[in-house]
Amino acid sequence: MDLLTNQQVLLLLLNIYLLYLGGTMNFKINKISLNQAISTVQKAISTRTTDPLLEGIYVRVKDNTITLFATDNIISIVTKIECKSTEDGEFVVASKLFGDIIRKLPDALIDITVDKNMMNIKCEKSKFNISIHSASGFPEIPSISGSQSFTMDCQELKTAIRQTSFAVSQDEIRKTFTGVLMHIKKDHINFVALDGFRLALKRVDLQVDLEEKSIIPARSLTELSKILPEEGEVKIITSLNAISFESESTCLYSTLLAGEFFSYDELIRKDHDLVAKVIRRELINSLERASLLAKEERANLVRVEIKDQILNISSNSEIGDVKEDIFCQMEGREIQIAFNSKYLLDGLKIMEDEEVRLNFIDSVNPLIIKGVDDESYLYLVLPVRLAG
Amino acid sequence: MDLLTNQQVLLLLLNIYLLYLGGTMNFKINKISLNQAISTVQKAISTRTTDPLLEGIYVRVKDNTITLFATDNIISIVTKIECKSTEDGEFVVASKLFGDIIRKLPDALIDITVDKNMMNIKCEKSKFNISIHSASGFPEIPSISGSQSFTMDCQELKTAIRQTSFAVSQDEIRKTFTGVLMHIKKDHINFVALDGFRLALKRVDLQVDLEEKSIIPARSLTELSKILPEEGEVKIITSLNAISFESESTCLYSTLLAGEFFSYDELIRKDHDLVAKVIRRELINSLERASLLAKEERANLVRVEIKDQILNISSNSEIGDVKEDIFCQMEGREIQIAFNSKYLLDGLKIMEDEEVRLNFIDSVNPLIIKGVDDESYLYLVLPVRLAG
Repeated sequence: MDLLTNQQVLLLLLNIYLLYLGGTMNFKINKISLNQAISTVQKAISTRTTDPLLEGIYVRVKDNTITLFATDNIISIVTKIECKSTEDGEFVVASKLFGDIIRKLPDALIDITVDKNMMNIKCEKSKFNISIHSASGFPEIPSISGSQSFTMDCQELKTAIRQTSFAVSQDEIRKTFTGVLMHIKKDHINFVALDGFRLALKRVDLQVDLEEKSIIPARSLTELSKILPEEGEVKIITSLNAISFESESTCLYSTLLAGEFFSYDELIRKDHDLVAKVIRRELINSLERASLLAKEERANLVRVEIKDQILNISSNSEIGDVKEDIFCQMEGREIQIAFNSKYLLDGLKIMEDEEVRLNFIDSVNPLIIKGVDDESYLYLVLPVRLAG
Repeated sequence: MDLLTNQQVLLLLLNIYLLYLGGTMNFKINKISLNQAISTVQKAISTRTTDPLLEGIYVRVKDNTITLFATDNIISIVTKIECKSTEDGEFVVASKLFGDIIRKLPDALIDITVDKNMMNIKCEKSKFNISIHSASGFPEIPSISGSQSFTMDCQELKTAIRQTSFAVSQDEIRKTFTGVLMHIKKDHINFVALDGFRLALKRVDLQVDLEEKSIIPARSLTELSKILPEEGEVKIITSLNAISFESESTCLYSTLLAGEFFSYDELIRKDHDLVAKVIRRELINSLERASLLAKEERANLVRVEIKDQILNISSNSEIGDVKEDIFCQMEGREIQIAFNSKYLLDGLKIMEDEEVRLNFIDSVNPLIIKGVDDESYLYLVLPVRLAG
């Protein structure tokens, strides 16, 4: 090995000194892009986090690209935006303060300089200096490799999330039911959620050539729904314990819930003894009125009786009683049955059909509700068994 | 006196028997009118009432008119609507339940029958029976007589309420300052609110030929503002301890607050050493950004320095600092002063002028803010004295 010349030694020392000082990062970015990127990754930050580091956003600047990343260890969101940068680097900044500052700046070019532990933000006549943290210790950006992938229409995925995620269990003890099952069955995907009282199933026709079940935490899906673009496609990659959704320059990763999902197929029987067709809006209005006398203390209990082409809803409490009649087209025999009106209403409100079909077996088996024109969605509610 | 015939005796006995049974009231009214009337009188009901009777609405039916009345003993609201009635009577019904039922009924004719302690509500295919209470024990509808009265434009009164009521004190110990002073001064009325940190004054020019001071609870005025029509006039009647506002078929009564109001005139000095004219929106935006680093723990403290036609706002906390420059047209000498930014923002946001004038004396005397084109409104803020 050759000896170093004096000049080379000097250069080496200078480099070590500069590294010790820390480089001065600088990047310029327009306010609207940065604001949107921050609000995207903020969706991953839990309001209930107890780890102060996870209240931060990780920022990396490299080759004229800013990468923003935030996580609560279940959901991780990464987004990239173009910028003009002169020096690369990475740091962590308090999410809420950074977001509030950028949001309130004028719609103009923002000039950000990072020097040691301070970030300097300039925009028109505003100048902020805020302290930042080292990126060391912040979780790694997750990646899923060697796994199966397919693409799906953004709008279809949003609809599937909206029509199922509300029906998951809120009970953290039975973790599995706090998630939505994504059941890939070669030529279609079933999204299924249930909580022991009702079940929501959305079928999306899609050629995937996979057979796979993933239980995705409901919060991951509702946050995903907020950041998915209105149109375009989303690339979905699944592995045993994680899933990612990538669209445009943003990727959401979520851990999956372990455990076996309920075999929902068995619940969905087809041997119905009564099918009643009603106008969805009329049924919602009548149920809402009947619920006024069947509040929490009565478990929202409403009685439903169908006969002579009339669907009658009634309920009562100490303060009074109510009776509602709705015209229906019925095929099959009469029925008397009772429900928690909240569960009926949740499903009816999420549907879009003008008319729905109510499929009954008897007063103890589940009611299955389907839109008259939409075979892709099914909502099932367990009746309340009345004493005596 | 003649003796009664057998027939007359029988009729008399029948009448006594019917009175004993209680008459069957019946009235018909369209849903939209009744719904609006209920939501009007509900504004008087306090969510914090401890008297179950005051959670009710008093209903009187007489001569094809329904009178609805609710009160929390400070605010009382009475409204009248026409109906088709066959029998007169009065009762009290639970406000929330009655309101919820009527609101959720279809927009059609409602048929209400009251028999003993039950009210029967029919509307299209809906039938409700709810229990009601006797009207005995419910407070009397208040009336103010033998007092001074004048009329005022509804919109002008709404503006005066909006521009002053936010500035009252929230401190229930100093009751007087939880109200807005209505100071009638012959040819104009001053509406004044203050809380020890800032003062809001709205002048309404009106020939009243009265000299009078009334301190009106702020909540009475904000509820009044919600039920006042968008146009037309309101008749105001004042007495020593009460005031009423009547417009169209609705009347709001309020008790007044006792005590002497602060002599606000002395506070409003005119000997200003510096007048700075700025664009209101720019000042709001800069103050909001500067406040991000001056939250509650720093008492929203922002420093303001005006010199060389520049208004500079700065603040700092452990996490960083911010500097904001705004161009201003200044007349007078330089100033350095500090404020709680919340008080500045409250007033600036309620104003409507594009430009405002900031009138300073020195760093310890109040700042007076006025719209450049609106002499009728004045907002005064006390500075924060800095140590050292």
